[in-house]
Amino acid sequence: MDAPDAWTGLFISFEGGDGAGKTTQITRLAEILRAEGREVVLTREPGGSEGAEAIRKLILEGDADRWSPLAEALLMYAAREDHLERTIIPALHRGAVVITDRFADSTMAYQGLAGSLGEETVSTLYKLVVGERGPDLTIILDIPVEEGLKRAGHRAGDKKNAGHGGEQRFESKGTAYQEEVRQAFLEIARREPERCLVVDARGDEESVAAQLRKAVEARLPGLFSA
Amino acid sequence: MDAPDAWTGLFISFEGGDGAGKTTQITRLAEILRAEGREVVLTREPGGSEGAEAIRKLILEGDADRWSPLAEALLMYAAREDHLERTIIPALHRGAVVITDRFADSTMAYQGLAGSLGEETVSTLYKLVVGERGPDLTIILDIPVEEGLKRAGHRAGDKKNAGHGGEQRFESKGTAYQEEVRQAFLEIARREPERCLVVDARGDEESVAAQLRKAVEARLPGLFSA
Repeated sequence: MDAPDAWTGLFISFEGGDGAGKTTQITRLAEILRAEGREVVLTREPGGSEGAEAIRKLILEGDADRWSPLAEALLMYAAREDHLERTIIPALHRGAVVITDRFADSTMAYQGLAGSLGEETVSTLYKLVVGERGPDLTIILDIPVEEGLKRAGHRAGDKKNAGHGGEQRFESKGTAYQEEVRQAFLEIARREPERCLVVDARGDEESVAAQLRKAVEARLPGLFSA
Repeated sequence: MDAPDAWTGLFISFEGGDGAGKTTQITRLAEILRAEGREVVLTREPGGSEGAEAIRKLILEGDADRWSPLAEALLMYAAREDHLERTIIPALHRGAVVITDRFADSTMAYQGLAGSLGEETVSTLYKLVVGERGPDLTIILDIPVEEGLKRAGHRAGDKKNAGHGGEQRFESKGTAYQEEVRQAFLEIARREPERCLVVDARGDEESVAAQLRKAVEARLPGLFSA
């Protein structure tokens, strides 16, 4: 599809480990933007379009070792291409704000930097599929691993909450891996400071939301006064 | 998985347009090799392993425009990675002859050279997924488009026979596209003469089989006297 300069919407992704509060903060941000009269499209990965949801099922079904790391990344990117083509880009063309719960940084963090697939393969897929169609802003909700897992604990075993290639599978790898994932997100933020915003997610819902709004306002001054 | 020098089997792919007689010739070649005491694994793409067959269903289900060309190629390569990991490479490690009805050249011909996706994208995926794990020998059964479509005619509407991303869909694009696909296979053979063998598939079953055996014997002298 077209290049980014052909659309007028805004593309925001939320990233971070499990239990960082992505869903809560996304919902709050959407409410504020809708109150300002903006069209907001809430979506998530893997999934977010009919084809991508079908691929999501394939990824999450079956044993943890059903797919090789490379097959899983290819499926993830096939889903992402569908998500972009059918949901994200059409919404951006309409001028909507698209907020996605996870996007390409999750593949880079879980499979690339912390996983066994390696950075180069994930980068190649990113260039092939996303290219210039990536988020305008990425909010990384950062929380210490133990605290995140504790918060996420009540959802354990609930596969519907598996956020990225079956988080239960990743959780079972233990906290050392979770710590690598956390550091991977922080590393991505260091590499792309203009796109990424790290928000400390340790506080209660209200204080994180206030902090997040302030940071987003500083980054995108026009957003809350459309 | 391991590099090719770690296995002792032989990897053969059959390629060509619909109606070229791939299935018939593959069956005959397998019979000859089995009579010689060789283990032969017959497989096909898209599919050939449990995961790849599940992806095949996703590719073939739904409308012709369900997937963008890029999403379809990513799914095809996710299936190919699974096919390699679960079926092809383990068999090659056992010393088997693996014969697949279609492999990566079909993606290059249908989606890359004759399709809208372009050669570069398909090459990138090939390097990422197949690399050094490609066929030792590729037999391209070449037949004029009209003749192939006539032969394949009795299978029209039978989705199980859709060989590569739903051949019915490709057939509906008409003979001009089919001719481009035929030329694409011949171009691949010109580029990689050491791997590819073009066999004229116009004759009857017996004469094509005799010609094929002669050509394969010349290329792989030890194959029929194991």
